[in-house]
Amino acid sequence: MRIDIITVLPELIKSPFEASILKRAIEKGLVEVHFHNLRDYTTNKQKSVDDYQFGGGAGMVMSIQPIDDCITKLKSEREYDEVIYMTPDGETLNQSMANGMSLLKNIIILCGHYKGVDQRVRDHFITREISIGDYVLSGGELGAAVLCDSIIRLIPGVLSNETSALTDSFQDNLLAPPVYTRPAEYKGIKVPDILLSGNFPKIEAWREQKAYEHTKTRRPDLLSD
Amino acid sequence: MRIDIITVLPELIKSPFEASILKRAIEKGLVEVHFHNLRDYTTNKQKSVDDYQFGGGAGMVMSIQPIDDCITKLKSEREYDEVIYMTPDGETLNQSMANGMSLLKNIIILCGHYKGVDQRVRDHFITREISIGDYVLSGGELGAAVLCDSIIRLIPGVLSNETSALTDSFQDNLLAPPVYTRPAEYKGIKVPDILLSGNFPKIEAWREQKAYEHTKTRRPDLLSD
Repeated sequence: MRIDIITVLPELIKSPFEASILKRAIEKGLVEVHFHNLRDYTTNKQKSVDDYQFGGGAGMVMSIQPIDDCITKLKSEREYDEVIYMTPDGETLNQSMANGMSLLKNIIILCGHYKGVDQRVRDHFITREISIGDYVLSGGELGAAVLCDSIIRLIPGVLSNETSALTDSFQDNLLAPPVYTRPAEYKGIKVPDILLSGNFPKIEAWREQKAYEHTKTRRPDLLSD
Repeated sequence: MRIDIITVLPELIKSPFEASILKRAIEKGLVEVHFHNLRDYTTNKQKSVDDYQFGGGAGMVMSIQPIDDCITKLKSEREYDEVIYMTPDGETLNQSMANGMSLLKNIIILCGHYKGVDQRVRDHFITREISIGDYVLSGGELGAAVLCDSIIRLIPGVLSNETSALTDSFQDNLLAPPVYTRPAEYKGIKVPDILLSGNFPKIEAWREQKAYEHTKTRRPDLLSD
């Protein structure tokens, strides 16, 4: 999989890709992530990527020209499955979208910043608009990092133990059951006896029961889906 | 505001705080962000922060001892409003939660990693569990960065123009209307005439209408709240 991230702040988004699971996925060659600085695509002397909004109002708007030039260049080099724009009013990311997107080959992710991009970019160049949740961030960079993380960890070979991802929350519409590790007793607080029993069928049944109860208490909406 | 972030991967989460709005907020002294590496708090020789789960199963679990020691040390130094754990089965972050949390004084954010933390940590040390959305990430670090960004930009003085945040999506249960910037015509694609009219009351009415239509099409759930 190849991911091209277009941003005015590549330095903001780099560290999540230089550690842990994303770093290993890149090193193993399972995913390529390329950052493109929009400032490299401006044709004006000031290298500005934004301007005041038409009609007045607070907040700058990202201009169409550098975005057009960057996307056009990338599309001349290869086919893309999606050109995604990160925006709070996009389709809300969930695990099933992440599952589907982990099968794509090439995607572009455009990060908005300031007040967002000129609407003509969204109307003419973007194929999918995605939000990571109902809140506003300084820019689309963190959203892009979140989207990449949710997708990349699902690519076969990225997680050392693939069954680990299958037992995560949401994969079966249930939240994960509680987990415990050593010591069995810590300052008088004990691990549930069942987990120390060695009776694996019973442990499995206990976990299923706990996952169901936990989901029913916290997220009954997941059970009715 | 002071934010203490507890993580096994401080290097993963640093860059978002070293650029743009979060960087400026820190430089202006409007917020302090401190990273605590859990490995500095382990008492075992191997400096390990995780262990196999009781009862078997894929994925490592973060141990209680270093987390207890780190939180206990921080709490001995000052009062905290919340000790937050980032987890996909927590309360789902939204703009109104971010608004509320931007008024807090001191918070701790614990980032889970691997299969999560020993349940006893959640039962005994955590006051609030927060999710940034219905998807699973490699760890809580990106979630913590998202939470911090959503909160910090709302602290008075952080954004250069505060009315900008007030017109963002979600602040009035409406998605933002479309925005445009120069040029008025780009490769034959024009900006709506109304925005070039100079008639500001009409522009305001057009924006309200567009925000309402956009919300009705994309997120009718916001209108019924």
